[in-house]
Amino acid sequence: MTLKVAVLPTSTAHLDEALLSADAVLTSLDNAQALIWTGSDHTGFPRNLPSTIEWVQLKSAGVRPWIISGIIDAHRTWTSAVGAYSDDVAEHAVALLLGSLRLLTRHARANTWLKDETWGAVRSLRGRRVVIVGAGSIGRAMIPLLNALGTQAIAVNRSGRKVDGAETTVAAGDLNTALAAADDAILAGASTDATHRLIGAEQLAALGSNPRDGAPGVLVNIARGDLLDTVALTHALHAGIISGAGLDVSDPEPLPVGHELWTMDNVLITPHIANPNSRMTESFAAFVSENLRRFSAGRALKAVIDLERSY
Amino acid sequence: MTLKVAVLPTSTAHLDEALLSADAVLTSLDNAQALIWTGSDHTGFPRNLPSTIEWVQLKSAGVRPWIISGIIDAHRTWTSAVGAYSDDVAEHAVALLLGSLRLLTRHARANTWLKDETWGAVRSLRGRRVVIVGAGSIGRAMIPLLNALGTQAIAVNRSGRKVDGAETTVAAGDLNTALAAADDAILAGASTDATHRLIGAEQLAALGSNPRDGAPGVLVNIARGDLLDTVALTHALHAGIISGAGLDVSDPEPLPVGHELWTMDNVLITPHIANPNSRMTESFAAFVSENLRRFSAGRALKAVIDLERSY
Repeated sequence: MTLKVAVLPTSTAHLDEALLSADAVLTSLDNAQALIWTGSDHTGFPRNLPSTIEWVQLKSAGVRPWIISGIIDAHRTWTSAVGAYSDDVAEHAVALLLGSLRLLTRHARANTWLKDETWGAVRSLRGRRVVIVGAGSIGRAMIPLLNALGTQAIAVNRSGRKVDGAETTVAAGDLNTALAAADDAILAGASTDATHRLIGAEQLAALGSNPRDGAPGVLVNIARGDLLDTVALTHALHAGIISGAGLDVSDPEPLPVGHELWTMDNVLITPHIANPNSRMTESFAAFVSENLRRFSAGRALKAVIDLERSY
Repeated sequence: MTLKVAVLPTSTAHLDEALLSADAVLTSLDNAQALIWTGSDHTGFPRNLPSTIEWVQLKSAGVRPWIISGIIDAHRTWTSAVGAYSDDVAEHAVALLLGSLRLLTRHARANTWLKDETWGAVRSLRGRRVVIVGAGSIGRAMIPLLNALGTQAIAVNRSGRKVDGAETTVAAGDLNTALAAADDAILAGASTDATHRLIGAEQLAALGSNPRDGAPGVLVNIARGDLLDTVALTHALHAGIISGAGLDVSDPEPLPVGHELWTMDNVLITPHIANPNSRMTESFAAFVSENLRRFSAGRALKAVIDLERSY
């Protein structure tokens, strides 16, 4: 039987192709078994879903706002887009890590040749140890990139179960030990009650406790702003407890005009663009195509939202 | 017989260890068979070398100024440090390429959250084709990094002989065709008479002729400033013929105060720091150690300078 799918608020050429290739047809919400929601948040999401909707596919990888809103219910299966954009986001994490070690903010703001001032302070990533806090889909996508760059990855996940390609994997309970053993850190975990402000003054002090080449390491956040205590971060940067930060997310987000972090030469800020729009539509359609096939075949969907875990 | 080596103007702890590990002893210039020159240029280099000096090891990978100065003679073997720093420089090339595609100059200069302005313009490296102009030691070191990032490398070298890991290799005579087929370009060749201003208006037009995701590609130069015509580059950036540039070298170098390139938001400039000082001493000592062993064993040295080829 042909799968009937509603796509709201609007479809894209890539999604139309995905439906076609999965032998699904586009219908209205009332006639559909599945809903593909293409909005980037829940603005305009239909409040009273027909009971005939068995499955809802969201476009976002992070779904905490959806869970907090109470929209995600237990009457059907909900899937996020976790994994759809991992490679693009992992690439941005590497860009921010290299950018922080190679002082790109300072250089981008310069209008003179600063070689005498910066050559001694620029660092290579090669030979460093980088802890990946939250080795989910995005965190795991970073590991081959870090390995190609001659870097050892220390993965931190809930269970401590070995992550492929990581030099070591440690359980979340040993986070501070992992930070103290590493040179740099990348935050890649989901935003949940358990990870809210996971990184505060104590964790930043651990990260900076083991300077290499005469300077403490840097912190990158491409996950969600609230994994990191912004006040503690600002203090640690001022005090030289860590030597730099690369942030694609912030708390609050957007980072307000006039915030001190905008002025610091050792902070590289991008406005939540790790997953570029130019690739998102295509990557989401490929992900949806796979889940449509799985749904039609009665197989387990990718990225099913677990309300208890909040992701 | 123990090899006698002079190290001028000053040695380092890493070099002392390298001599020790190669069973060489430090002597004065008059008693030495080999000279390790640790200066970054030829300032203070002894003009009348004793005829007993059979080999001179320089610290620089690029030796054009040495050749122009007339210091390099035919009475002994001269070696550069080509290859010693390749991994660090390749890493910087990737940092500048990612930084250009992800608009890091514009973001680093911002003091507000530019998501609406930049999200549509940021690009991922994944799926792009990058031409490496000059696939020597540094160019070849980039290929595994580009491959890990999901990118195809097109290598350009003198002969067109296949370079490992590159999707295709083309001879220097087909440079313009390679540029037209690629999305982005990295200049990694040596500075020689043949490569002087190799990239001008015509080559930039070829590079930009094939826009992907609605915009032409970017150019990175981590080689030597004079491979690139600065006036043509500035024009191409203004005219949107290419969409950005990442430059670790310039012509003239240092780039003068007040130069227009300093003001452009689509240009990422670093002051010739691709090979960070923090790693240079160590990398050079490892290279010297290998050449000391080869010299003692009567084997061919690494990076022998070829006066005819000028590198």
